[in-house]
Amino acid sequence: MNLKEEALKYHLGGKIDITPSKAMNSSHDLSLAYSPGVAEPCLEIARDEELAYIYTNKANLVAVVSDGSAVLGLGNIGAAASKPVMEGKACLFKKFANVNAYDIEINVHSVEEIVAFCKALAPTFGGINLEDIAAPKCFEIEAALQNLGIPVMHDDQHGTAIISSAGLINAMEISGKSFKNIKVVISGSGAAGIASARMYRTLGVENIILIDSQGVVHKDRENLSKEKLEFAISCKERTLKEVIKGADVFLGLSKPKILDEEMVLSMAKNPIIFALANPTPEVMPELVESLRNDVIMGTGRSDYPNQINNVLVFPFIFRGALDTHASQITENMKIAAARALADLAKLPISEEVKRAYNIKQLDFGKDYVIPKPFDKRVKAAVSTAVASAAVKDGVAKLKNFDEKTYFKSLDN
Amino acid sequence: MNLKEEALKYHLGGKIDITPSKAMNSSHDLSLAYSPGVAEPCLEIARDEELAYIYTNKANLVAVVSDGSAVLGLGNIGAAASKPVMEGKACLFKKFANVNAYDIEINVHSVEEIVAFCKALAPTFGGINLEDIAAPKCFEIEAALQNLGIPVMHDDQHGTAIISSAGLINAMEISGKSFKNIKVVISGSGAAGIASARMYRTLGVENIILIDSQGVVHKDRENLSKEKLEFAISCKERTLKEVIKGADVFLGLSKPKILDEEMVLSMAKNPIIFALANPTPEVMPELVESLRNDVIMGTGRSDYPNQINNVLVFPFIFRGALDTHASQITENMKIAAARALADLAKLPISEEVKRAYNIKQLDFGKDYVIPKPFDKRVKAAVSTAVASAAVKDGVAKLKNFDEKTYFKSLDN
Repeated sequence: MNLKEEALKYHLGGKIDITPSKAMNSSHDLSLAYSPGVAEPCLEIARDEELAYIYTNKANLVAVVSDGSAVLGLGNIGAAASKPVMEGKACLFKKFANVNAYDIEINVHSVEEIVAFCKALAPTFGGINLEDIAAPKCFEIEAALQNLGIPVMHDDQHGTAIISSAGLINAMEISGKSFKNIKVVISGSGAAGIASARMYRTLGVENIILIDSQGVVHKDRENLSKEKLEFAISCKERTLKEVIKGADVFLGLSKPKILDEEMVLSMAKNPIIFALANPTPEVMPELVESLRNDVIMGTGRSDYPNQINNVLVFPFIFRGALDTHASQITENMKIAAARALADLAKLPISEEVKRAYNIKQLDFGKDYVIPKPFDKRVKAAVSTAVASAAVKDGVAKLKNFDEKTYFKSLDN
Repeated sequence: MNLKEEALKYHLGGKIDITPSKAMNSSHDLSLAYSPGVAEPCLEIARDEELAYIYTNKANLVAVVSDGSAVLGLGNIGAAASKPVMEGKACLFKKFANVNAYDIEINVHSVEEIVAFCKALAPTFGGINLEDIAAPKCFEIEAALQNLGIPVMHDDQHGTAIISSAGLINAMEISGKSFKNIKVVISGSGAAGIASARMYRTLGVENIILIDSQGVVHKDRENLSKEKLEFAISCKERTLKEVIKGADVFLGLSKPKILDEEMVLSMAKNPIIFALANPTPEVMPELVESLRNDVIMGTGRSDYPNQINNVLVFPFIFRGALDTHASQITENMKIAAARALADLAKLPISEEVKRAYNIKQLDFGKDYVIPKPFDKRVKAAVSTAVASAAVKDGVAKLKNFDEKTYFKSLDN
C-alpha cells in the first residue's frame, strides 16, 4: 500500500469519537445527566457564569475553527475538504496534552462573518484555535476576537513563530550570535512569516527582511498589506539571491528548493537555516551538508535533525491557558513557551525519546536545538511556563494558581 | 447526598470527552493522521464533497445547537447555563444510538443570527439538532434551514410530537377510538404543542383545541402567532375547564396540576391523558386512578406506566437520517418513527426491559402503549423505519440502501 492508499484507509469514518465521561448505565444515572438533575448545574451557571469551568467540559475544551481558505500546502480547498485536517488537529490536542477539541469547519469566509461566528460560538468553549485561515484576513480576525473572554489563537501564526523562536534561541547560543546584530531573511510573508517576524523582533532582532511571491518586501512597493508594511524596508535589493548574502538566519515558509547552492554559500559564517516547506524543504539538508559544515539546519520533517514542528506548541499553549481559565494568550505566554522549549533541549534526552527515535544519545548542539515531539516532558514544562505567564500578566481568571503543584500534576 | 448535591458532583468537569478513533502511537501514525497523509482525504473531498461522509466523522456526527432561550423548565437561562443540558443530550445520542454529537451553545438569539450561524456550521456535521430554542422563533429558524443539505430538526417540537403520536396511535386502538372523530385538547402551545397538533392532524385528527397561558386559542384573539393561528378555532369556550368537557384526549405540555378532578371526570368515555409536565404532571396518575378506571394515562416520568420520553425518538431519527445521508427529515420519516414505536409496544417485552424495570411481565394494553427507553430493540426498529422513509421520500443521498441488511446491522 502506498501512502495515498494507506492514508485514505486510515481516514475511513473519520478520526474522532465522542465519549460520555460519566456513568450512563441506569435510569438513575440518566436522572442526573439529564432531567431532572441537570437543572442543578444549569442554575449554578446561570447564577455565576464562571462555574461553567466547573460543571461543564468548558475547562478542557477547545474549538478548532477553519474556513478552509489556506489548508496545509493545499490552499483554498473550502470548509468540507479541510475537515480531515481539523479532526487531525483535534487528535493531536488530545494525544499530546489531553485537551478535548471539537473540529468546526465553517462555510463563511469574510472577516465580519468569521468574527461573528466565533463570538456566537464562545460560550461553548474554553478557547478557540483558529486554523488554516488565509492571510491577511487571519490577522484582523484574530485581533477582533481578543476581548472575547476566552483565549483565541491562530496557530498558523503563533505555533510556527514560537517553535522557530525556540530553535532560534538555542541556535544563536550555539553559534555565538546575538539577536541585536543578526540579519534574518524570512521567505514567505503569510500568517507564519509575519508572526515569526513579530516574535523575532520581540526577542531583539532589528534586521529582518521579508520575501513574498513578488520578491523583497520593500517600501517602494504598492498595495502592501498592513502587516507587510510593518516590515517593509528601504533597500536596493529585490530578490532572495541578493538579500541572502551575508544573512545569519534563513527562515523558509515558502516553496521547495528555492534556496540554491550559491545562496547557501553566500550566507554569513555559522548560519542558521530553518527550511520549513513541507514535505520538501527550501533546501535539502544533504545539499547544505555537502556545501559547508558550519550550518545549523532545521526542517519540518521527522526524518532529519531539528524538526521544527508546532505540535510542540499549540497543545501546551492551550493546556496552560485552559488550566488558568485565561481570557487571552499574551505575548509573554508565547515567549514563555518558546523559552521553555529552548531550555528543555539542554537537558539530557529522555528514555522514551531514545526509544521512539531509535537513538542512543543526543546532546544539546547543532543537531539538537529543540526537543522532539514525543518527549513527554514537554507537556509539563511548556504548559507550566504558559500558565505562569498568564497569571503574571493578569489574564488568568483562576485564583490560587501554584506553579509547583501545577507542574507536578502534569509531570507524569 | 440529596439530588442537588449528587447532580452537582456528577457534573464536575462536564460529561463529554473526545477520543481519537484511530491509532496515534507512532511517528508513522501521525504522518497519516496529519501532515503529509491527511492531504489525501482532503483532496478527495475537494473533488467530491459527498466523500466527507466517507473520510471524516461527518456521517456519524450531529450538532446539538441551543441559544439557551427555553431550557427544560428553566426558561431563558442563556447559552452558557444551557451547556449541561446540551452535553447531556450529546451523551444520550451516544448512549442510545452511537451517534457522536458536539454540544454547541451560542450567544446569538435572533432568527437571522441563529440561521446564519447554522448555515456556516453545516459543513462540519451530518445533521443539526436544534434544542431548547424558544417559540415562536424556533419555527422560523427550523423552516429556514430545511435546504441546507443536511437534516435539521428542532427536537423540542418533533421529539415530543412523535413520541406522543406513538402513544396516541396505540391508546386509540385500545380504547376503540378513531382519529377522525376524537376531540383533542392540547394544554401548552409552544414548540412541542404546535408540532404535536400538526402531527395529530397528519394522523387524521380534525378537532384540535389549543390552550396557552391566555386560555383557549380562538379566532377572536389578537396578536396570535402564525402557528397558533393555524389552529385557532371559532367557539364560545374560553377556558380549559370549558373545553375539556367531552374531550377524548388531553395532551399536557404546560404546568403541574392544572387538570383538576372535575375536569378529569368531565372527559369522554375511555379518555387518554398524556400529562407531560416535568417533574410534576398536569394531573397525578394516582388521582386519575381514584376518579375513574377507563383512562389511558401517560406521563414524562420513569416511575409511572407509559413514560412519554423523546429519548425514544431523537437518537434514532438522526441514526436513520445519518445512515442514509439524508438531506432532510421529512414528515414521512417522523410518522414512520411514530408507527415503528407503536408497533414495537405490541411485541412481548424484552429480557433487558424486565431487568431494567424489575418487572416480570408487561403486555400491550392501557399500562403499556409505548416501549421503554431501555428497550434495545428500539434502535434497529425506529432507525430502520426512518431510513426507509428517507429513501422512499427521495431525500437519501446514499445509494444502494437495503432495509434488511441495515436492520440487521443495528439489531444487536
